[in-house]
Amino acid sequence: MRVDGSAPATSAATADSAVTRHRELLERAVQATRERSYWSAFPESPSPRVYGETAAAHGQQAFEALLGRRFPLDQDAAGGWVGAERSPYGRDLAVTYPRPDLDAALPRMQAAVPAWRDAGPLVRAALCVEMLVRINERSFEMAHAVMHTSGQAFVMAFQAGGPHAQDRALEAVAYAYEEQSRYPATAVWEKPQGKRAPVRMEKTFTVVPRGIGLVIGCSTFPTWNSYPGLFASLATGNGVIVKPHPRAVLPLAITVQVVRQTLSDSGFDPDLALLVPEGDDERLAADLAVRPEVGIIDFTGSSAFGTWLEEHARQAQVYTEKAGLNAVILDSTDAYRAALGNLAFSLALYSGQMCTTPQNIYLPRDGIDTDEGRKSVADVAADLGAALDRLVGADAAAAELLGAIVNGDVLHRVEQTAADERVAVASRVVHHPSWPDAQIRTPAVLLVDVADSGPHDQECFGPVSFLVTTGSTQESVDTFRRVVTAHGALTAAVYSTDDTVVEAVRQAALDVGVALSENLTGAVFVNQSAAFSDFHATGANPAANATYTDGHYVAGRFRVVQSRRHLPAAEAPG
Amino acid sequence: MRVDGSAPATSAATADSAVTRHRELLERAVQATRERSYWSAFPESPSPRVYGETAAAHGQQAFEALLGRRFPLDQDAAGGWVGAERSPYGRDLAVTYPRPDLDAALPRMQAAVPAWRDAGPLVRAALCVEMLVRINERSFEMAHAVMHTSGQAFVMAFQAGGPHAQDRALEAVAYAYEEQSRYPATAVWEKPQGKRAPVRMEKTFTVVPRGIGLVIGCSTFPTWNSYPGLFASLATGNGVIVKPHPRAVLPLAITVQVVRQTLSDSGFDPDLALLVPEGDDERLAADLAVRPEVGIIDFTGSSAFGTWLEEHARQAQVYTEKAGLNAVILDSTDAYRAALGNLAFSLALYSGQMCTTPQNIYLPRDGIDTDEGRKSVADVAADLGAALDRLVGADAAAAELLGAIVNGDVLHRVEQTAADERVAVASRVVHHPSWPDAQIRTPAVLLVDVADSGPHDQECFGPVSFLVTTGSTQESVDTFRRVVTAHGALTAAVYSTDDTVVEAVRQAALDVGVALSENLTGAVFVNQSAAFSDFHATGANPAANATYTDGHYVAGRFRVVQSRRHLPAAEAPG
Repeated sequence: MRVDGSAPATSAATADSAVTRHRELLERAVQATRERSYWSAFPESPSPRVYGETAAAHGQQAFEALLGRRFPLDQDAAGGWVGAERSPYGRDLAVTYPRPDLDAALPRMQAAVPAWRDAGPLVRAALCVEMLVRINERSFEMAHAVMHTSGQAFVMAFQAGGPHAQDRALEAVAYAYEEQSRYPATAVWEKPQGKRAPVRMEKTFTVVPRGIGLVIGCSTFPTWNSYPGLFASLATGNGVIVKPHPRAVLPLAITVQVVRQTLSDSGFDPDLALLVPEGDDERLAADLAVRPEVGIIDFTGSSAFGTWLEEHARQAQVYTEKAGLNAVILDSTDAYRAALGNLAFSLALYSGQMCTTPQNIYLPRDGIDTDEGRKSVADVAADLGAALDRLVGADAAAAELLGAIVNGDVLHRVEQTAADERVAVASRVVHHPSWPDAQIRTPAVLLVDVADSGPHDQECFGPVSFLVTTGSTQESVDTFRRVVTAHGALTAAVYSTDDTVVEAVRQAALDVGVALSENLTGAVFVNQSAAFSDFHATGANPAANATYTDGHYVAGRFRVVQSRRHLPAAEAPG
Repeated sequence: MRVDGSAPATSAATADSAVTRHRELLERAVQATRERSYWSAFPESPSPRVYGETAAAHGQQAFEALLGRRFPLDQDAAGGWVGAERSPYGRDLAVTYPRPDLDAALPRMQAAVPAWRDAGPLVRAALCVEMLVRINERSFEMAHAVMHTSGQAFVMAFQAGGPHAQDRALEAVAYAYEEQSRYPATAVWEKPQGKRAPVRMEKTFTVVPRGIGLVIGCSTFPTWNSYPGLFASLATGNGVIVKPHPRAVLPLAITVQVVRQTLSDSGFDPDLALLVPEGDDERLAADLAVRPEVGIIDFTGSSAFGTWLEEHARQAQVYTEKAGLNAVILDSTDAYRAALGNLAFSLALYSGQMCTTPQNIYLPRDGIDTDEGRKSVADVAADLGAALDRLVGADAAAAELLGAIVNGDVLHRVEQTAADERVAVASRVVHHPSWPDAQIRTPAVLLVDVADSGPHDQECFGPVSFLVTTGSTQESVDTFRRVVTAHGALTAAVYSTDDTVVEAVRQAALDVGVALSENLTGAVFVNQSAAFSDFHATGANPAANATYTDGHYVAGRFRVVQSRRHLPAAEAPG
């Protein structure tokens, strides 16, 4: 494990050798994007059989060695050292990060871009893969960094912050590589002229970057939500500024360290990638977003700031992943217990602090038909509570599934439900066996009616969801259409044994542009999306203007510029 | 020729038969976009050997039959009949067009979209090809319509308004088809679970349209500049509103007539495409552009309105082709006479009313080296004048190359140069042998110095160009960089026998994002771009935010929405 910027095991790597080593993986990844069946490049299991017997211990040591000091990132620090992260598990990380002087650093980045542009799509893609392979080698270190910034439990932090994020990054690199490969580097244009010799031209097509990419990270998924944009921009020839959330800097600092080291090892200027940390109360992202040098913005966070970026950062191509009101439509089920178990898991995972966690569970006031007979709304509420209790009733297991509450706003929101007369499933305080200061809560479920205006009409991030009663499944579907059209959604689910209901919800989901999960009862959950198969968000409703990842996500990050010149005439035909 | 909306020869065409008939052409077109060598689907020659002995006469008759009456377009006319086109060749067309009531028509269009969406990418692409084949059959009729709205001379109107526009449209359809084909319609996702049976899901991926496409036409290239957006939006599942320039409605009315008839013949709702004509002084485009139903805008025209659209039509994906200051850098040449002849042709064609016409010709104050010896600036000015004289010195030939001035603003701009003391090559009035009322002018060339601020620092659309003297070729290149960065450009050219100069201009062209033509002396001109090979504009400088056509041009017109469901477990492995 490298924690000090020293040369990695692969320091002899040149750009060419990266192509040799990674081309096959890259092409397999492109194939995966076209098939969208199961594929993964980076193993999600933290098992010693996969990552080695010593990997877990070494990763933890590497993480601990970072704490309480200046982060070893060899970049401009003219702006001073900033950082005040405190783990949701209750320890100050006490790491500070070098802040560059942007007025000096951005011209350096721009000066570095032509060589990166001229390296071409294949070399860039191979070096992005090299970065990801090096990041993968640090997955245990990264897991601790993600855990102690996001509040995710360790295994989730390992998977979502490590291999899953790396897979999403590789998916973006694969799309970027393929997108650029649609254009030939050169062509001979030979236009017939009847009996005369054809006119012949030689043409050159060069992929040019759109402009510096600004990646604005979030606190809940600092790597998973930042990697697609970061690596898509790098792979398409752009320099990148990485602006982490002030409470989740460390995972991206490690990332930028690897990116810069790989660039440097391969003969490129490391200033193609810069970490730009900020203090807690700054609005640095807004300042950066409107700088003329910035040509691309990738943002994950609040709808308010995402919309502000879309409206104000007019010089840039802006990709936003914002918030939505994720929906579940309960109509009927032939697997009542499994359905509620699946749903309970989705509500509980990371204490509902995923942008994909279900918020509104619509069901008819007169209940639903199930394989265990007719269930009233009160039955469903009680049985969902029981399902949650099976999952998170015991503190030790609960702590590993729930994770810690990421900030005071979320904590306040869930604590307020205690006094709410509409509570159908109460939230419970969970004590972590190892981290006594961690704030951990089980999900609260409130029972409301669609006729009442209320919190089910606005985003309620965190472990608070709503059973929303309606006059009928038809009204549930109509409400789903209305709410998602107005507020957006990242996920939707339906439970029904009636094919016509499922088909009606499918049509509604197509019309309002949201991904749909149907009758999930097994080991797949509505709030999870698998790289290379599931698209995360669609770009077709207000929750996001793009998806992870597709052609649209990468195509706007570069342009093609051509030149042409005469060639000597060939022989005249016939 | 059909001029009355009656059933065409291919009326029996169904969507399936369109796929059968056009799939090969479509796949050949996709191949052409990947090779970008010479390819064309629609013959550019108006020769009777290509289009048949009677095609020219029948096309003219069809055109004449349209004049002085209501255009036979079977769409909602609740908004009345509007139209006041006057040919730049001096005749009133006296055609009126039905104006729909948008508050009624747009909901009808939206209701028609799901069936078009569900038809899928291949059927849509095949039907777009069918539309283009039918439009191609009307190329002579279209040539007259383009000539008598744009002012282009007949052969140019035939080529640019007919086959070249059809090729550009097919290029857009090919990119749109391929872009959608990157996503499988379905996939089986099977995740290994060690010794347990894998988890299996079935996933469905559906291309959904972005929202109604608004196509805002221009008066100079009513079809060529409108077709890429129109057909890219249709091919990606969107309905389209076609808003022509009030002085160039007829070519797009014919187009929409064919589009609607083809849709209708194939069992789709013709209201997927609507012509929305307006009076001369309306600002209908601005009203339409911000309607919430509009999800895509394709615009060709002024930088001012293009920028307004980019800033205000926030709900839409906006593609703009605006204006720029196209540049030529004269350093040296080993083919002086051929270079000036080539350049003169580019200045003269369509009286310089192309968005790609060179405006600023930079050359050192101390002249240039040529195969005919050193040439001073005065020599170059005189010899460029002589080259123009050879091309457009005689009225009959001049009229066929120049075309008519499209509007009073352009006419005023060129007439003002007569009294300008900086005139190096004077503009001349040309009398058209058949159209005495046509205003036809040869290009004026003004001699200015780069140190003077003046018209060479702003767009000067029409037959007015500038010889801009500089201290050196280096200053020419620096000025080119500065002017294009600030104002944009659609084309650039360099003449030099020095490889280091050519390479420096190539680097500058990459940096400022403009297509470069090097040492053109033959039958290819800087202001012309060939479909399937040359990109028109780059999207990488202020003259345009997109190109005709690439992946970026089509990828933002649709999204992919998925659904997923469990499949029964397969056998457990070994």
